[in-house]
Amino acid sequence: MNSFGRLFRVSIFGESHGIQIGVVIDGCPPGISLEEDDLKDDFARRRAGGRGTTPRIEPDIPRIVSGVFQGKTTGAPLTIVFENTNVKSGDYGNLWDQPRPGHADFTAQKKYGAYNDPRGGGHFSGRITLGIVAAGVVAKKILGAVKVTAALIEAGGQKDIASAVEAAIESKDSIGGIIECCCTNMPIGLGEPFFDSAEALIAHMIFAVPATRGIEFGSGFAAASMKGSEHNDCIRDEQGQTITNYASGINGGITNGNDIVFRVPIKPTSSIGLPQDTYNFKEKTVSSLLIEGRHDTCIAIRIPVVIECATAIVLADLMLQERSRRI
Amino acid sequence: MNSFGRLFRVSIFGESHGIQIGVVIDGCPPGISLEEDDLKDDFARRRAGGRGTTPRIEPDIPRIVSGVFQGKTTGAPLTIVFENTNVKSGDYGNLWDQPRPGHADFTAQKKYGAYNDPRGGGHFSGRITLGIVAAGVVAKKILGAVKVTAALIEAGGQKDIASAVEAAIESKDSIGGIIECCCTNMPIGLGEPFFDSAEALIAHMIFAVPATRGIEFGSGFAAASMKGSEHNDCIRDEQGQTITNYASGINGGITNGNDIVFRVPIKPTSSIGLPQDTYNFKEKTVSSLLIEGRHDTCIAIRIPVVIECATAIVLADLMLQERSRRI
Amino acid sequence: MNSFGRLFRVSIFGESHGIQIGVVIDGCPPGISLEEDDLKDDFARRRAGGRGTTPRIEPDIPRIVSGVFQGKTTGAPLTIVFENTNVKSGDYGNLWDQPRPGHADFTAQKKYGAYNDPRGGGHFSGRITLGIVAAGVVAKKILGAVKVTAALIEAGGQKDIASAVEAAIESKDSIGGIIECCCTNMPIGLGEPFFDSAEALIAHMIFAVPATRGIEFGSGFAAASMKGSEHNDCIRDEQGQTITNYASGINGGITNGNDIVFRVPIKPTSSIGLPQDTYNFKEKTVSSLLIEGRHDTCIAIRIPVVIECATAIVLADLMLQERSRRI
Amino acid sequence: MNSFGRLFRVSIFGESHGIQIGVVIDGCPPGISLEEDDLKDDFARRRAGGRGTTPRIEPDIPRIVSGVFQGKTTGAPLTIVFENTNVKSGDYGNLWDQPRPGHADFTAQKKYGAYNDPRGGGHFSGRITLGIVAAGVVAKKILGAVKVTAALIEAGGQKDIASAVEAAIESKDSIGGIIECCCTNMPIGLGEPFFDSAEALIAHMIFAVPATRGIEFGSGFAAASMKGSEHNDCIRDEQGQTITNYASGINGGITNGNDIVFRVPIKPTSSIGLPQDTYNFKEKTVSSLLIEGRHDTCIAIRIPVVIECATAIVLADLMLQERSRRI
Repeated sequence: MNSFGRLFRVSIFGESHGIQIGVVIDGCPPGISLEEDDLKDDFARRRAGGRGTTPRIEPDIPRIVSGVFQGKTTGAPLTIVFENTNVKSGDYGNLWDQPRPGHADFTAQKKYGAYNDPRGGGHFSGRITLGIVAAGVVAKKILGAVKVTAALIEAGGQKDIASAVEAAIESKDSIGGIIECCCTNMPIGLGEPFFDSAEALIAHMIFAVPATRGIEFGSGFAAASMKGSEHNDCIRDEQGQTITNYASGINGGITNGNDIVFRVPIKPTSSIGLPQDTYNFKEKTVSSLLIEGRHDTCIAIRIPVVIECATAIVLADLMLQERSRRI
Repeated sequence: MNSFGRLFRVSIFGESHGIQIGVVIDGCPPGISLEEDDLKDDFARRRAGGRGTTPRIEPDIPRIVSGVFQGKTTGAPLTIVFENTNVKSGDYGNLWDQPRPGHADFTAQKKYGAYNDPRGGGHFSGRITLGIVAAGVVAKKILGAVKVTAALIEAGGQKDIASAVEAAIESKDSIGGIIECCCTNMPIGLGEPFFDSAEALIAHMIFAVPATRGIEFGSGFAAASMKGSEHNDCIRDEQGQTITNYASGINGGITNGNDIVFRVPIKPTSSIGLPQDTYNFKEKTVSSLLIEGRHDTCIAIRIPVVIECATAIVLADLMLQERSRRI
Repeated sequence: MNSFGRLFRVSIFGESHGIQIGVVIDGCPPGISLEEDDLKDDFARRRAGGRGTTPRIEPDIPRIVSGVFQGKTTGAPLTIVFENTNVKSGDYGNLWDQPRPGHADFTAQKKYGAYNDPRGGGHFSGRITLGIVAAGVVAKKILGAVKVTAALIEAGGQKDIASAVEAAIESKDSIGGIIECCCTNMPIGLGEPFFDSAEALIAHMIFAVPATRGIEFGSGFAAASMKGSEHNDCIRDEQGQTITNYASGINGGITNGNDIVFRVPIKPTSSIGLPQDTYNFKEKTVSSLLIEGRHDTCIAIRIPVVIECATAIVLADLMLQERSRRI
Repeated sequence: MNSFGRLFRVSIFGESHGIQIGVVIDGCPPGISLEEDDLKDDFARRRAGGRGTTPRIEPDIPRIVSGVFQGKTTGAPLTIVFENTNVKSGDYGNLWDQPRPGHADFTAQKKYGAYNDPRGGGHFSGRITLGIVAAGVVAKKILGAVKVTAALIEAGGQKDIASAVEAAIESKDSIGGIIECCCTNMPIGLGEPFFDSAEALIAHMIFAVPATRGIEFGSGFAAASMKGSEHNDCIRDEQGQTITNYASGINGGITNGNDIVFRVPIKPTSSIGLPQDTYNFKEKTVSSLLIEGRHDTCIAIRIPVVIECATAIVLADLMLQERSRRI
């Protein structure tokens, strides 16, 4: 299903070359200031344009079509849509014959049959994450003092990201990267033991973002090599602040007031400027494929704001839930 | 909430030193053979007993109390319970005064107040994962040809796990480890783009297992340093089998028929035999704490079967969902 | 929340005088033929125009903006929107001062505060049921042989509906009515005992339609005066067809293959052409209110198609669920 | 599925002659006083014993097995179970051959096949509503000042219920009845427009109670014969109290602070002491069936407390949800 959340519930819809993509947010509290202009900054961060991103720039002009009256949310479902303009769909017949490696061409065809919309990636397009960003902008307004910040900390295995990108452009290849996200000024008490642990809900949401390959919280994979005497965070004051923060601000699934810190590896863009081998279902043999057009060399550059917004959505939902608990 | 799943829905309940812990499985199809004895093998794998696990062994005797008639599931809710016998609860007052580092003592108290059941970890106890294992045994029966296998591949940073464990026992400390899980004979088409991607649902469930610090699928964190030309898996035949499997059998959130492979780091057990500093809320200062009793030196030894069963639950739910799609 | 359904999940959004109202259908199977024109007939039935309905006619032109490609559903979220054109919002300030009796003016203000959109009823408007009708048209295509038919069988207490309507128009008052809905060619096995009984899900959905005051299945309220020897339906053949059908085709929450028949009373339209007393919060006293404009004299005339579509949505969801059950 | 609720979530399980039946309540706030004895009164009301109820009396002894510590709810899942003792299951083979009219024998067999547990009605047994009553007792504690009261106001078409029951006992037949439920001291603002309207959620829950045939709120079916000028409730004071209450305390799906009043017809008990015709699948013809044993002559006598508890569950959930809304 294309929805996420219990009380602050986000549903996304649309296809890359369809008429309209968008997001419906159910359960948004009334009285939050919101206008289209509020989306501008986060949309700009997500948009292509710089080195390593596709030169094909979409306008991404949002329309708030329901749920806002006189500049404030009403409490009714909040819908934000984006018209897809100037889309030119090429001949996609060859995707059936020869699925692009790393893309969803093969799985979409198998799952949805000939009915899948293949134009520009259809519903699988990263463009659909616009809805997540839009919902995240709203969620951040619910978070109050809590700040969520994500950044690309490494690309192609290097901290000097610009040079890694240039090298990849030069070789007509693509590169991946690592995004780190930090949530500060966290309240104590969000999340539940087991299925609705704060980590479980964040991880669920993060894997909704295309191209993510993993997630680690705090000590993460390094925890496997640590001793308990090193890993246990010593509480140092009444507020529960700890000296180290290997737990990433979460114990037993519940936030402890320290920062939530997690890292997400992003795979290299699947579309590259080099010929690649893949199966040709028409010719019944592996043959070479060259994907036309211009692509993001490093899609990871555009994803931090999506991670940030996805995380804000989870935290907003947990904050609304926590409020309901006090009798 | 303590439930997970859409059509095959698992709810767990209970406390470490309470009367009964258990699991309710809603949506289990009728006609599956099931008896208490079927749980024996997976329970044995989860149970303590070997080197590096606590010498305090619980019997874990399951009773199927609803949903099975004449040895077959009926289609009604399937409930499996475990009586907690011979529990001796010590004085837990000191957990309020001085929360154990790495445990949920502090967060539980803040979230639930004085009402939290602290005895033996209460509802936060790893013992509650018995319900996940029980549900996983049932889920595996739904999976048919699909096999899910998890194993500890590293502990304390070493492949020679036994020696790592001995060293940790010697030093009265604890160590973490890495678990790898592999799902073979996978059908094509499970999962959805975005929020219900196969990775998202598996990750959600894996973080429901206490002590997990991360998850990576296929290439995982290494993907961040790879080029697209390396990372893209070349499809080699009609069935969609690929030469490499960096995608971990999932494209666009949907299984492609190749194995799902993922790795999970487990933190070192929080309870150790060494004194640790932590805040003392009564004395209003950091002071030393020595946790009494005997503990798992390497809890990661007992977790592979839990990861395996958690994964089976997700796949069973996705298989039931996929069946509903065909019109 | 503004969503309903487990596998065929419908979300509606919009306000009477907002920019766009619409519906998102999640979980619609791929391969169903659908074009805007398919909505024409059911929209015409819902539209005003005849005697007893408001002369204020809205165009209701649907746009399918996602989830359909080359005339077939794709399996991705299916979104249908309606632009609100030529809306003229009057001065709604007086709704705060003197809430209209029978309307949601008072409750909306109390629940959402000053943030509620009052223009034309805002999100409470019956116009939002356009989305239910649109989703119902899609649902009917999933139902196959099953037919759902609803009709107004009584208005203002009379079977001669036309004359009842004329009398009400004459008196500037409004009247209610009773709608009967019948589902034929039903498969056996839809629904569950208890919370997801076929009656429970249908009733839930029917009360989502504004102006409904009740629901009764089969024998309904008359059952209370019947004897078991009269009420029990005698099964007469292998297919489970019964001689009488007091059970309305449902036993133990599960469809038995006989017709589902239920009746729904609709209240008289709240807006009438006569002055009415109600509290004036500004003057702090009960005073008379005359609601301007033209209204439906008998809103029940326009509701049968909404009931029909609402029912089709529930049955489609149950049919998809039932399909998943077979192992 | 056998669960209901968003934040206060109730799951029931068990079979009439199984080992254990019970209820799991997820999302119960911590700090609520609860002991087994608190269930005594409502259980007594539900229990058989008086004229018109079966002489077969079950003990219904509850055990709180999780979620309560030192007499207070902990915030963890609250589980209450009932052992089934002294059950004697007769030969149920004949239920397959000749399904009892009015019972779920036929539908259960068709839906679950030979796997359905037929003993004493299995999971379809009214005995499973014990879990609803238990959860309702907890819910009532959340409701604070709100009182929910249900009573049988008519049986066999008569207000003199005792004489109607005696006549039915005499004739070895069974009779139905009408239950009226009233919720007083209601807060303003519970429920949502459309799918989660207060009526929709209550109706959903009420139809989870076996033997219900309908529901009407306030004016109910009489509304169909009323005029708007009669039906509209005149608000008479600042608190929104109205002179009449045809709306049953709900406008636009949202509670307005007036009492919620609804009526539910209960069908006559299906099992009667008279021979009845029904299809014999073995003999492939309609033949006579006499159901052995002793039955409730008027099951409606035992249902008011179930309706009351079911309603309390819905209101408790809505109250928790409403609390989360205030930002």
